Amino acid sequence: MTIVVKVGGALGNRLDPVVSDLVSRTDYVLVHGGSESVDRLAEALGHPSEYLTSPSGVVSRHNDPAQLATVVMALAGTVQTEAVAAFARRGVRAVGLSGVDGRLVLAERKHGVRAVLGERVVHVRDDWSGTITRVDGELLRGIAGLGCVPVIGPPAITAQGEIVNVDADRIAAEVAVALGADALVLLTNVPGLLRDVSDPASLVRRVDRSEIDAVLPFAEGRMRKKVLAAQRALAGGVGRVVIASSQVDGPVSHALAGEGTVFS
Amino acid sequence: MTIVVKVGGALGNRLDPVVSDLVSRTDYVLVHGGSESVDRLAEALGHPSEYLTSPSGVVSRHNDPAQLATVVMALAGTVQTEAVAAFARRGVRAVGLSGVDGRLVLAERKHGVRAVLGERVVHVRDDWSGTITRVDGELLRGIAGLGCVPVIGPPAITAQGEIVNVDADRIAAEVAVALGADALVLLTNVPGLLRDVSDPASLVRRVDRSEIDAVLPFAEGRMRKKVLAAQRALAGGVGRVVIASSQVDGPVSHALAGEGTVFS
Repeated sequence: MTIVVKVGGALGNRLDPVVSDLVSRTDYVLVHGGSESVDRLAEALGHPSEYLTSPSGVVSRHNDPAQLATVVMALAGTVQTEAVAAFARRGVRAVGLSGVDGRLVLAERKHGVRAVLGERVVHVRDDWSGTITRVDGELLRGIAGLGCVPVIGPPAITAQGEIVNVDADRIAAEVAVALGADALVLLTNVPGLLRDVSDPASLVRRVDRSEIDAVLPFAEGRMRKKVLAAQRALAGGVGRVVIASSQVDGPVSHALAGEGTVFS
Repeated sequence: MTIVVKVGGALGNRLDPVVSDLVSRTDYVLVHGGSESVDRLAEALGHPSEYLTSPSGVVSRHNDPAQLATVVMALAGTVQTEAVAAFARRGVRAVGLSGVDGRLVLAERKHGVRAVLGERVVHVRDDWSGTITRVDGELLRGIAGLGCVPVIGPPAITAQGEIVNVDADRIAAEVAVALGADALVLLTNVPGLLRDVSDPASLVRRVDRSEIDAVLPFAEGRMRKKVLAAQRALAGGVGRVVIASSQVDGPVSHALAGEGTVFS
């Protein structure tokens, strides 16, 4: 069984339980994001992150050149290196790969991102965001064949060799599709998809693939991206997708046991 | 023939001629440093780099925790990603590997670095510098076997999973030894080892391995590390080492043709 697990940032203790839970397994791949690490570094460098809201309500980072450079430092640099070291401390060899490495995650640059600004919809041009067109599953199998766990994160690369930022949940979905994964686990800081974000008891436990459009209205902000990633993964042949909490002991085991929102 | 080429930072145009010169070849590995990128980022983050001088005159970065974090962002993040993208733009698949990835560069942490402070020699304790104990040539051959050029840089990792900074010239030497390389090319911003640093005409053209100790007094600052790296590589079985300029068209070809200081 191949599983793909996606976690957020590597901010200390958040990553450790995930890595601890994974090391007894084989045949898994870890995908990481790290928005908070990017935001923190951007703040320290004096150019705080800006977020854009699309007309359909998806919130995304504004990847101007300074922000893109920060993404590279925080994700391909800090988060990825710390994740690989966390595996090493537990005796597991891992190799960090951004989407640029070996052209693992190929993307097309979005030309002119549309964003809602007050009551207007504007075109944002100085943005290096991309849409994933292909993940190289062969390269991932090759790395695994060398005895190393792939640890994957943004950015991606275009066919012309431009570095572009892409959503990490979407990378995880495309990696799961490229590997023909049995399960995709998207870990987050809430128990799963909630009907009411202020009420953990409103957890949606099971979602059939035919019902995803019906639950999408409950998914706001970053959760919306996770549900869209789940939809993409299922459409691409992944067996099931679980959105679950990273804030428990053994978060991957719990998610695979069905604790969270299971899409199938 | 296997060659190992080491360049400094990826600050724009400096890396491009090296990559252009390499892409027509096969069977090479690129090692990068990037001190200037680290210094620039450290400055932007408000904790400028500090350098320590050992009693024997070797100048090294003081790798306190903030500096080590900066090294990871600048080298494993920015420089490595930009180098891999520079290959991609020329149609070559490369994979960036810090010494942490797959435990490629294993090191022992130096406990208590000795440094000259005024007229005293002090022990600097909050330092995460390492001494390389092993480079995993098998992993590098594996990556090459997947059709990818390894692009390697600091930091390294200890057996306990601590991230430590190590000298990039020394990584290059140990990579060359691990691969049984025919040649190691150390590119820099001067034509090679100069008897008088202010006079390019004072270039030392040939150094027999038995004469290295005799020329070491000419090598100051970072050049000293390059000469010591050359000595290590030759002792480890590398055919020849060339210290040469990166500031010419076709810097690798020129170096391999003997333009620079050739140690053999």
